[in-house]
Amino acid sequence: MPLSWSDRYAPRVATLRSSAVRELLKISTSPDCISFAGGLPGPDLFPVDRIEEACRTVLREQGGAALQYGLTEGYPPLRELVARHASRFGVRVEPDNVLVTAGAQQALDLLGRAFVEPGTLVAVERPTYLGALQAWTTYGARFDSMELDEDGVRPEAVERTLAKRPAFVYVMPNYQNPTGATLALDRRRALVRLAAAAETPIVEDDPYGQLIFEGDPLPSLMALDIEHRRAEPRADDSQVVAIGSFSKVLAPGLRLGWIIAPRDLIARLALVKQGVDLHTSTFAQMVAYEVARRGFLDDHVARLRAAYRARRDAMLEAMATHFPPEVRWTRPRGGMFLWVTLPEGVEATALLERALAEGVAFVPGRAFYPDGGGEHALRLNFSFAPPATIAEGIARLGRVLHRELAAASRRTPVAAPGTRL
Amino acid sequence: MPLSWSDRYAPRVATLRSSAVRELLKISTSPDCISFAGGLPGPDLFPVDRIEEACRTVLREQGGAALQYGLTEGYPPLRELVARHASRFGVRVEPDNVLVTAGAQQALDLLGRAFVEPGTLVAVERPTYLGALQAWTTYGARFDSMELDEDGVRPEAVERTLAKRPAFVYVMPNYQNPTGATLALDRRRALVRLAAAAETPIVEDDPYGQLIFEGDPLPSLMALDIEHRRAEPRADDSQVVAIGSFSKVLAPGLRLGWIIAPRDLIARLALVKQGVDLHTSTFAQMVAYEVARRGFLDDHVARLRAAYRARRDAMLEAMATHFPPEVRWTRPRGGMFLWVTLPEGVEATALLERALAEGVAFVPGRAFYPDGGGEHALRLNFSFAPPATIAEGIARLGRVLHRELAAASRRTPVAAPGTRL
Repeated sequence: MPLSWSDRYAPRVATLRSSAVRELLKISTSPDCISFAGGLPGPDLFPVDRIEEACRTVLREQGGAALQYGLTEGYPPLRELVARHASRFGVRVEPDNVLVTAGAQQALDLLGRAFVEPGTLVAVERPTYLGALQAWTTYGARFDSMELDEDGVRPEAVERTLAKRPAFVYVMPNYQNPTGATLALDRRRALVRLAAAAETPIVEDDPYGQLIFEGDPLPSLMALDIEHRRAEPRADDSQVVAIGSFSKVLAPGLRLGWIIAPRDLIARLALVKQGVDLHTSTFAQMVAYEVARRGFLDDHVARLRAAYRARRDAMLEAMATHFPPEVRWTRPRGGMFLWVTLPEGVEATALLERALAEGVAFVPGRAFYPDGGGEHALRLNFSFAPPATIAEGIARLGRVLHRELAAASRRTPVAAPGTRL
Repeated sequence: MPLSWSDRYAPRVATLRSSAVRELLKISTSPDCISFAGGLPGPDLFPVDRIEEACRTVLREQGGAALQYGLTEGYPPLRELVARHASRFGVRVEPDNVLVTAGAQQALDLLGRAFVEPGTLVAVERPTYLGALQAWTTYGARFDSMELDEDGVRPEAVERTLAKRPAFVYVMPNYQNPTGATLALDRRRALVRLAAAAETPIVEDDPYGQLIFEGDPLPSLMALDIEHRRAEPRADDSQVVAIGSFSKVLAPGLRLGWIIAPRDLIARLALVKQGVDLHTSTFAQMVAYEVARRGFLDDHVARLRAAYRARRDAMLEAMATHFPPEVRWTRPRGGMFLWVTLPEGVEATALLERALAEGVAFVPGRAFYPDGGGEHALRLNFSFAPPATIAEGIARLGRVLHRELAAASRRTPVAAPGTRL
């Protein structure tokens, strides 16, 4: 590469590196490998026929508009549909409260551009979604992380973090990526109460909320925030910005997500988005609207719930059979991921190399920690593969784990007194 | 909006304002208004049937892949197709030299993120593409602008700018937006010679190059740079980064563009893009590939050339008939725009208000200047409307111009001696 380009990188980009794990995982795309690594929906469950029909309708009835430039804020009927959908859950959302984005990842990026400068402190769960860390790191974010368990972040952790005055708190309340944890109702209430007292806004990222397998859905942070602050029950009065996505309930290949926020903030983010990509694909938006407008997604989501629950159960059952007893894992009530904790002696990145040799892949836990940690943990996706494949993959991973644990117990990692390892 | 959000805007966003012109132009979407304002392709020319067929083929044959997450760098066959297309013009481009982007606007944004920091100097034409100014302003760019005439930027202007050591030079060599100017061959040679001597990279933005109405296409800056520096004839050895787009030759509603650059830079930009939106719509990429792969676009572009040439001619003819003799305009040899220069007494933004009342719209020249200027100029788009509509719109604009010029000549803008206006 001619020197003149690489000499001129802005610092935010000069330090970017492809992670070793990302490079390793390139192997996992081989057909022999069963991958639990990607955050992928099951492709066998995509409503291909319905989407084909929607393409035909959109192109025949409005081809000129569907293929033309569109409004930065989004296709108006789709904004209205998102607003109507979101209004089911206790907060009035108007179309002007909705910005259509190129997937939820762009929502994170736009919020980063609007609120993160070099040195800005952002509070995140520990572990948290890798893509949020990536999006905000390039703007120079520092992170403070709040430990979570299967019921989400504890109020004490929230309080400790808020005392450091972060710009905002980022939370995935439902079936969190990567752990599968759900933030319990009392903890939700505590979070919005503490954040309101500290006048600290919350970013509520909820791509998986509709993929619920058991129990009742819990109220959103936006709804609870409004209830707690006795504000008008409308998105304009919320201190919570909500991110949503069509990727998990329809298809990620369309790249469609949204932000719900007070309309002034939406207008500001639209100005930002204009410089970023002008607008999100008109065609993709009109196709998604056409698919969704007659209630199809409600039925489709019901199918997804049943299928993903069966896949989760297949994974849990296979783990109970094949994993050594020293290994622990979460039992998520929805979503696409579960989280495995290994005994201290076994390091997840080393395990990945061995697992790939055996034809099975996962993401080591470390990637999800902004500030170290997760060495003895890993994330498994259960939505991509059908149950029989999941069972086979877990059996392979079980064999690797048994070998590794045996090897670890043969090692004697005891330092001689006075010697640092 | 709760104070807590608006209090926390990063400075780059806090100062963003929707321009007065943008607000004015919202009127131009009314059905009675003939708009020459947008940079829109003619929707009657979109190959709707061919795209419908491609949607069907892609979904039936590869529905699972088309609706799934994809690679950040782009759909491999599409990268290969772009590389093959670009290799026709004297520089060998490999798929690894290509990054697929969400339209050319995202290409500008990614380059901004990679190379622009607060205070970074960027050299642009004067006037230049508004979207480039928007994309780079949010990263804190300063601009130095090089005056252009109908043959593009003059070598003296390039030399003056390069002496200030900009991070890169941004040029649209073919049918420039907004002026329609084409950079002449000798000036292309001078530009690459001067930039190479100053070790300053060039960003070559060419969305309109294929929309050529007359004469032979001129060699790209990338090809000339390689020839001048006697480098290997391949994109990896170029100091020029090229931006291209499917928006003007296929459909902007798909949001598909690309960057061609040395592969190390492409790999770096892909890391950046990952945090921005993960990847560009898999479905849109596969549909564009399916449309283009059997040479369809060559025929389609021939149709666009003929249609847009007829629209340009309709506009030129109507201007000759209806515009006052004091008004001048460019005669572009391709593309979608021409540039009108008004007499000193007439201000384009004031003219727009009167034009909108008459049912015709354009973009005042000022928007295209990073540092003031263009008050007496305006941009007209000739690709959107069919010839008869163009003739009617120009007749309306002609009436407004005649009235304005008469009014201007009645005004006596002479200051009394010793008095500042």
